[in-house]
Amino acid sequence: MTLQVAVIGAGYWGPNLVRNFLASPQWRLAAVCDLDEVRARAVVGGTVGENSVDIETSLERLLARDDLDAVAIATPAHSHHGIVMAALAAGKHVVVEKPLASSTLEADEMIAAARDAERVLMCDHTYCYTPVVRRIREAIHSGEIGDVLFVDSIRINLGLVQPDVNVLWDLAPHDLSILDFILPGGLRPEVVAAHGADPIGAGRACVGYLTMPLPDGAMAHVHVNWLSPTKIRQMVVGGTKRTLVWDDQNPQQRLSIYDRGIDVDLTARTADMSDRRAAGVSYRLGDMYAPALPEREALAAMVTEFAAAISEQRPPLTDGLGGRRVLSVLEAATRSLDGGGRLADVPPTPPVAHWADSSTVVAS
Amino acid sequence: MTLQVAVIGAGYWGPNLVRNFLASPQWRLAAVCDLDEVRARAVVGGTVGENSVDIETSLERLLARDDLDAVAIATPAHSHHGIVMAALAAGKHVVVEKPLASSTLEADEMIAAARDAERVLMCDHTYCYTPVVRRIREAIHSGEIGDVLFVDSIRINLGLVQPDVNVLWDLAPHDLSILDFILPGGLRPEVVAAHGADPIGAGRACVGYLTMPLPDGAMAHVHVNWLSPTKIRQMVVGGTKRTLVWDDQNPQQRLSIYDRGIDVDLTARTADMSDRRAAGVSYRLGDMYAPALPEREALAAMVTEFAAAISEQRPPLTDGLGGRRVLSVLEAATRSLDGGGRLADVPPTPPVAHWADSSTVVAS
Amino acid sequence: MTLQVAVIGAGYWGPNLVRNFLASPQWRLAAVCDLDEVRARAVVGGTVGENSVDIETSLERLLARDDLDAVAIATPAHSHHGIVMAALAAGKHVVVEKPLASSTLEADEMIAAARDAERVLMCDHTYCYTPVVRRIREAIHSGEIGDVLFVDSIRINLGLVQPDVNVLWDLAPHDLSILDFILPGGLRPEVVAAHGADPIGAGRACVGYLTMPLPDGAMAHVHVNWLSPTKIRQMVVGGTKRTLVWDDQNPQQRLSIYDRGIDVDLTARTADMSDRRAAGVSYRLGDMYAPALPEREALAAMVTEFAAAISEQRPPLTDGLGGRRVLSVLEAATRSLDGGGRLADVPPTPPVAHWADSSTVVAS
Amino acid sequence: MTLQVAVIGAGYWGPNLVRNFLASPQWRLAAVCDLDEVRARAVVGGTVGENSVDIETSLERLLARDDLDAVAIATPAHSHHGIVMAALAAGKHVVVEKPLASSTLEADEMIAAARDAERVLMCDHTYCYTPVVRRIREAIHSGEIGDVLFVDSIRINLGLVQPDVNVLWDLAPHDLSILDFILPGGLRPEVVAAHGADPIGAGRACVGYLTMPLPDGAMAHVHVNWLSPTKIRQMVVGGTKRTLVWDDQNPQQRLSIYDRGIDVDLTARTADMSDRRAAGVSYRLGDMYAPALPEREALAAMVTEFAAAISEQRPPLTDGLGGRRVLSVLEAATRSLDGGGRLADVPPTPPVAHWADSSTVVAS
Repeated sequence: MTLQVAVIGAGYWGPNLVRNFLASPQWRLAAVCDLDEVRARAVVGGTVGENSVDIETSLERLLARDDLDAVAIATPAHSHHGIVMAALAAGKHVVVEKPLASSTLEADEMIAAARDAERVLMCDHTYCYTPVVRRIREAIHSGEIGDVLFVDSIRINLGLVQPDVNVLWDLAPHDLSILDFILPGGLRPEVVAAHGADPIGAGRACVGYLTMPLPDGAMAHVHVNWLSPTKIRQMVVGGTKRTLVWDDQNPQQRLSIYDRGIDVDLTARTADMSDRRAAGVSYRLGDMYAPALPEREALAAMVTEFAAAISEQRPPLTDGLGGRRVLSVLEAATRSLDGGGRLADVPPTPPVAHWADSSTVVAS
Repeated sequence: MTLQVAVIGAGYWGPNLVRNFLASPQWRLAAVCDLDEVRARAVVGGTVGENSVDIETSLERLLARDDLDAVAIATPAHSHHGIVMAALAAGKHVVVEKPLASSTLEADEMIAAARDAERVLMCDHTYCYTPVVRRIREAIHSGEIGDVLFVDSIRINLGLVQPDVNVLWDLAPHDLSILDFILPGGLRPEVVAAHGADPIGAGRACVGYLTMPLPDGAMAHVHVNWLSPTKIRQMVVGGTKRTLVWDDQNPQQRLSIYDRGIDVDLTARTADMSDRRAAGVSYRLGDMYAPALPEREALAAMVTEFAAAISEQRPPLTDGLGGRRVLSVLEAATRSLDGGGRLADVPPTPPVAHWADSSTVVAS
Repeated sequence: MTLQVAVIGAGYWGPNLVRNFLASPQWRLAAVCDLDEVRARAVVGGTVGENSVDIETSLERLLARDDLDAVAIATPAHSHHGIVMAALAAGKHVVVEKPLASSTLEADEMIAAARDAERVLMCDHTYCYTPVVRRIREAIHSGEIGDVLFVDSIRINLGLVQPDVNVLWDLAPHDLSILDFILPGGLRPEVVAAHGADPIGAGRACVGYLTMPLPDGAMAHVHVNWLSPTKIRQMVVGGTKRTLVWDDQNPQQRLSIYDRGIDVDLTARTADMSDRRAAGVSYRLGDMYAPALPEREALAAMVTEFAAAISEQRPPLTDGLGGRRVLSVLEAATRSLDGGGRLADVPPTPPVAHWADSSTVVAS
Repeated sequence: MTLQVAVIGAGYWGPNLVRNFLASPQWRLAAVCDLDEVRARAVVGGTVGENSVDIETSLERLLARDDLDAVAIATPAHSHHGIVMAALAAGKHVVVEKPLASSTLEADEMIAAARDAERVLMCDHTYCYTPVVRRIREAIHSGEIGDVLFVDSIRINLGLVQPDVNVLWDLAPHDLSILDFILPGGLRPEVVAAHGADPIGAGRACVGYLTMPLPDGAMAHVHVNWLSPTKIRQMVVGGTKRTLVWDDQNPQQRLSIYDRGIDVDLTARTADMSDRRAAGVSYRLGDMYAPALPEREALAAMVTEFAAAISEQRPPLTDGLGGRRVLSVLEAATRSLDGGGRLADVPPTPPVAHWADSSTVVAS
């Protein structure tokens, strides 16, 4: 069965959604909606005949159509809440560009509305659908790397100083949504510390660091930076058995899995902690392997997952709760930043029942 | 004039000091002192005849000799205070392996004793004498990179879990002593936040992050880690004019200086901050250059500086006050760590007059 | 003035030409010609209204149109000669995908026809229009690196075994056309040695090496390989003053210019050649710099150059003679390969007068 | 049983031999012999007492000693023949720095003399004793990478222009001795082509390329260069099953083994070679792994192998025949170079019986 979708927003990200819905066998792109008709038409390009895509300039008219199963929203973040609520009220399934909303308050309303309408609410956390992140998730969930000890994520570049958000809200949603996707149980820190600097007088933090304790003494750390002359996108996930290094700037060896690490044998502990051998600390210096990863566009996998979630009446891999968890960390980070780096509590994201009979579901 | 020196401690670092004092035209190595006579003799090797080096097993006897101008101390950190105080009391100039002492309290006594005895008290902050760090200091002090905007330092590796100190005290003294050396006025943050994790149950933090606000909205950040499967030693120093990247693992291109960055023209600011161009933000995407660096052993330059400071009756480039500033950050970091990452004040290191007529001196 | 162009061939490369002609202010894309009408239409996409592009399935009909100034040919190599001759006979300017033709014999006829018809015959040597190759050419022609001492070019990857040509004809045209573009006077070796291997029984060489003596004792060497598990595209150009390293797989530092090298002062030579210093050999170990390169699509610059050559009635930077020189080396390489690596003569490419009054012109 | 050895030659390489013989449990270093007594004494350093090492300035006197089992020769290449012949005549086992001799003629005499004297004649092909080359040999000999398809070796750097030999004789012995060590059956090409250039007027080739057909259509290629501003030491060994990449400049990932390649299924061949799938060509794009390699000094393994060969009365892994095979390629390369790159025959190295009852032995 083919599902019918409309893309809302023909700006920076919209064309990518259009291209992938057009190429997907699960979807038929029925319309593109933008206030700017010329821009919308340019995005659609030369689709004609029976594959023609309608251009709509009125959101109201678009949502009133009864041939649409779903909408994909690629508008500025502050408009997500209003459009999503209207789309759900009109009975459409929804996928939204990151971040899900401007606040957890908005997100809660959207999630509750989706639950009540029995519609899918999905976040387009695109990175989660790349082959490398899928492989990292698998390596963690399968036990291949053991328990997570630490995560260190770096995303720095000479970046565009955004007019409305600081570097944490601009870049860290990527890191946080990836963390939410790969960590068993999702990203649920109890506190976060955020440190930021605006040394160029841009009016908002251009350099940012996030620190989050994870369960069992582990820790996650994120470094985002608009002022770096070099581009680094690297994440290290240390585990009790193996450690992953993901270097996104190295397409020839994007993912390396090291059988190297330190083991502590607690049963070997003696009173004399100064004797390292007695303390049961030993070192592994094993092989490294770099798994072959398929070449596949992440957005193609994302639109496939959106269709599957709708068909199977289940939450998508990156559901509204995941997007809400990301927002809850960002909000706490803002409070920490305003407090000069003081630790800020991250209120837990409550579980929400999906559809009439479903029980609590989290990304798993 | 040749100065006479004795090396105290024939363990891990002592042999390097012995080799460099032996090779230096400014110095004559008169003795090596260690409780373990065999080890001391092995370190000295085959020096015979008029270049023969005495072996001493008694510190007291060694310091009682009147043919020694100076001693170099390479013993465990907790013993530094006692040995330095004795050496200064015996009228010797002193250079001490890092860290200077176990606490700022000890350091203050050592600094005061050196001032009163009119003797040089130097820290062997070896990295500061590498050609690359000398070049970085020059690039900052000369104005080549403009004002410092941020410093990000990473020092991670599969490291030996130390029996007595955590990863911050083990590795961060390198980063902090370098920061103290390259920043105009030295490293003088007012507060520090330290985050740490011990996910392997080693009994002490194995992963650590330090954040320090610097003057004028700048920020320094240090990441040290014993659990990384790969070895990274990298420091980025962002400036208003240029940005340095020091990659110590890349001997073929250790230092890269980028003419890339973001400029904010405050005079161009308008009311409408959403218009980036109006806000005066512009981007430079210029050349990079990698200056040729001499191949020179850092310790050779260190022993030369020690001799020069003694001869010229001036503080060395890495003096006791620099070592004390490093300790004051580490002590505050410990308090922050104990408080779960809470910001901790760093009490200022007071200036100390050197020699009878000298005024306050800091590393400059 | 806008020129009208048609693209012939809607296969692998044609869409790129279409996109760049559409985006160029100098050009109006009037038609796309392919035997497969559906494919041609797909390439054109949604251009409608006054920018509509005609679809032609007959070459004859296309060339009979009098609204076309030029054609761009992206068909298989064996068809180049026939199409180019017909296009020139119809009075069109022509740009042809590499290689120019299947043989120097064909190329000679095409060049003569273009001269007689007073039309531009251009090779789409796309690499020559990349910012990095333009910068390399400038560095050589301006004297920045001094005289060329050696060129070493590597282009290896796990490649598609071509059904009709060996690895030299598949990949080396890139290296040879770049050499022709950057070397003062173009690529004019007198002999070439080619070594090849087909260790997998593919029926044609899968590993190939080309060696060409250059003037003044210099040498060029090319390594092409379909069997390498890693992708390397690297060219080193050694000069008397500086040496260039172009690493196309490193977008963050594509071009590095080293002030490092060996100088021989012949006037310092003495009878005793065993004394290296007396022999006047000295070493430079200076800085490296990596010039900023603009981000610009090569094909956009190519179509601009095509228009400029037509307007200014001059040979384009990559003219038919350049394409002919590349073919002459490939033909000699085939003879060398057939002879087991024996040196093969490369007959010189004769100069050809362009247009009525122009004198001999070579790429300069 | 401990063997007694003397090192002859206290120049560049001698000290490394001295250090490793001193540290070896199989050996007792009895003497160092050099015409320059001061230099010899400096090399020995502070060995005293029962471990004292004698200094000899007369080769004759040294070889007359009856407490020596063996000598290690680290003198200039032209002197190897004379010293080795004298040592064998005196009944000593011999290990010689590379290259074994100045010519195959000399080598033949040395090999015959060793056979007749029933003494070990070993080449110090140091690279063969590094962990990485041992692992490469194992990967080839065990069948892990399948049959060898091609070898490409690069050894370039800003090098010292040697007063007496060209770049091929200076650097290629490393590549050739490694090839001899890792290829099953040793390095036995029937022909070689050598191309060289002396673009700086140094009086000898500073850039050199060697091409050697190997059995079954495979090919080996070596690039050596004194004029490169960057240092590259890389060898790729392509196999039917896997491909090795050894990057000696990358200590963190020196050896990478790729399960990537092209398979040709000859049984699938059809008449229509233009259909690639029909032709049975398929691609593997599997994982890569980087085996952990022990940290071990190559020379330590070399002196251990020397002792083992003597004790077990067997040829060492790098025997005189291996050194002779390297020389035979170098001599043919010289003839090829003199002929402007013409192919030159490599006369086969005849097998030589070792000791009375041993049969022909080659490196295996």
